[in-house]
Amino acid sequence: MAQTMRAAVLPEPGKPLVVKEVPVPEPAPTQMLIKVLYASVNHRDVWIQKGLYPGIRPGVILGSDCAGIVEKVGSEVDSSWIGKKVIVNPGLEWGPHREVQSSSFHILGNPTDGTFAEYVVVPAENVYQPPMHLSDEESAALPLAGVTAYRALFYRGKIGNGEMVLITGIGGGVALMTLKMATTIAGNIIVTSSSREKINKALELGASEGYLYTDDDWHKRLVKKWGGVDVVVDGASGPNIPKIIDILNPAGRLVIYGQTAGEIPQLSTAKLFWRHLNILGSTMGSPSDFEEMLELWNEHKLKPVIDRLYSLEEINEAFEWMDNAKQFGKIIIKI
Amino acid sequence: MAQTMRAAVLPEPGKPLVVKEVPVPEPAPTQMLIKVLYASVNHRDVWIQKGLYPGIRPGVILGSDCAGIVEKVGSEVDSSWIGKKVIVNPGLEWGPHREVQSSSFHILGNPTDGTFAEYVVVPAENVYQPPMHLSDEESAALPLAGVTAYRALFYRGKIGNGEMVLITGIGGGVALMTLKMATTIAGNIIVTSSSREKINKALELGASEGYLYTDDDWHKRLVKKWGGVDVVVDGASGPNIPKIIDILNPAGRLVIYGQTAGEIPQLSTAKLFWRHLNILGSTMGSPSDFEEMLELWNEHKLKPVIDRLYSLEEINEAFEWMDNAKQFGKIIIKI
Repeated sequence: MAQTMRAAVLPEPGKPLVVKEVPVPEPAPTQMLIKVLYASVNHRDVWIQKGLYPGIRPGVILGSDCAGIVEKVGSEVDSSWIGKKVIVNPGLEWGPHREVQSSSFHILGNPTDGTFAEYVVVPAENVYQPPMHLSDEESAALPLAGVTAYRALFYRGKIGNGEMVLITGIGGGVALMTLKMATTIAGNIIVTSSSREKINKALELGASEGYLYTDDDWHKRLVKKWGGVDVVVDGASGPNIPKIIDILNPAGRLVIYGQTAGEIPQLSTAKLFWRHLNILGSTMGSPSDFEEMLELWNEHKLKPVIDRLYSLEEINEAFEWMDNAKQFGKIIIKI
Repeated sequence: MAQTMRAAVLPEPGKPLVVKEVPVPEPAPTQMLIKVLYASVNHRDVWIQKGLYPGIRPGVILGSDCAGIVEKVGSEVDSSWIGKKVIVNPGLEWGPHREVQSSSFHILGNPTDGTFAEYVVVPAENVYQPPMHLSDEESAALPLAGVTAYRALFYRGKIGNGEMVLITGIGGGVALMTLKMATTIAGNIIVTSSSREKINKALELGASEGYLYTDDDWHKRLVKKWGGVDVVVDGASGPNIPKIIDILNPAGRLVIYGQTAGEIPQLSTAKLFWRHLNILGSTMGSPSDFEEMLELWNEHKLKPVIDRLYSLEEINEAFEWMDNAKQFGKIIIKI
């Protein structure tokens, strides 16, 4: 095994990534060294690259997701893992409470070195067998977006059989993972986007209807046709939130996991309490969320939506593609 | 039994109540006729009197709460109830789902005639034996404020043993009911008010600390001393909500049941999702909430806080007292 590896390093926040040779890391006693086959890009990576996250470590190797092969294990880890294909739960040190992460929680890819490299070390407890029906590229797409979507829809949103679901900003990784998983339980699935093309693709994947959220009255037309929705999974926040409050059915749940469109604007208190609404924050997921997510994908043979493939050398182009919100599905990096 | 009774009638929205003789109502087959001993005033009554509620019926007898004696029962009701002391769950036709009321749900006192009268008819299923340790005045204080507080703190807020609770606007009926019930389960209870005198009274009732919400930095001092709170029960909404978001512990629950201070202003999306916070609307309560509330008051021999007593003839003065937010506890009407 080589002593050095190629990796996409962030020299400092705001600068492009630099692909260069760095030392191959050594697994600690409870860790595994994974040879990365494919990684996938998350919005988080782009925001860290731009310097929009707290606590960025200059020189860090970015990347949270991967599919790979166990190359080497620490002294306390079962050596029968060696040579096996694996995926990795990128959430480190979630802690004992499913409700919320511990203060030491962090995600593979900052400040811990991540998956945009030929090798990565991870705690053995974060390593799982990938779903058998997925290709390596597909497995690499799943971890962070999948666990975020699972937690939002099932653990936080408590989606019930046959309930109406709204997924905003379809095209993003989490939104499409939510769509895939919602098809296993929801009644009708409604999506929004600023792109008619993305809506049409979502209809092919199982959505019943899509609305351009750039239309002022999209929420009124939704109510007129569908009555309302029970669960909303939203990564945008911003000016559409009051409209979402208007279309929530009584006892409805609005789960917010992101803020690509800004803060939550002023809301009607009476609508909230009279209809016993729930506005629920959610981010990433616990080990239980990750394991239940894998079970669901195995049980229903779900497949993630892949947008396109880049090489490690093209990583800055991949970031730009995501930053321009052109993707429909996960952006994969072939290592 | 007389053919007419004295009752406080709302001639039209915005006008003072008029106490006058009206016919005694007749119970339908599934109803009971209750001779009212004491009633209590809720904010709702004042808002209806002012015309601030939708669907006000001119000529309605206001009042949601009472303690009384069963005078007469409908043909399908067990006649052994006659002569018994009772209290009434004022929520009519909640419906089958505990999560949220049905569209036909309404509260005794509009449009159905209420308890500010010598007699009131109510569905037999809404009638309960009052807690044995309570006086008639105390029993009359309990129903609407008690069920609202119970649902907010237990069913919606899911208060856990030893958790930190914040109750805003202490002095109001629901806030004080929440305080009483929180003493049975919470760790420390923090209250806010615009009145130092009300805070001091709350400390005597079991609160650990109180803050004047009129101080700009009350929330910062709370965090410095107590770390944060797990459950907030709030009937104010308005400009203090962002401060409450700041002091919520991870996975904390903010339950809002009213809006005496206005709408929910702009909120930080990142604080919501990163800490998995919950903003939960709640109003009044289901039959299960009412029954569990009664059990709790019986088990712990809790007593409601009574502010003062008015006669039926003084009902407009009682409304004015509440409207000026001078009360600390429930305002009782002796019929």
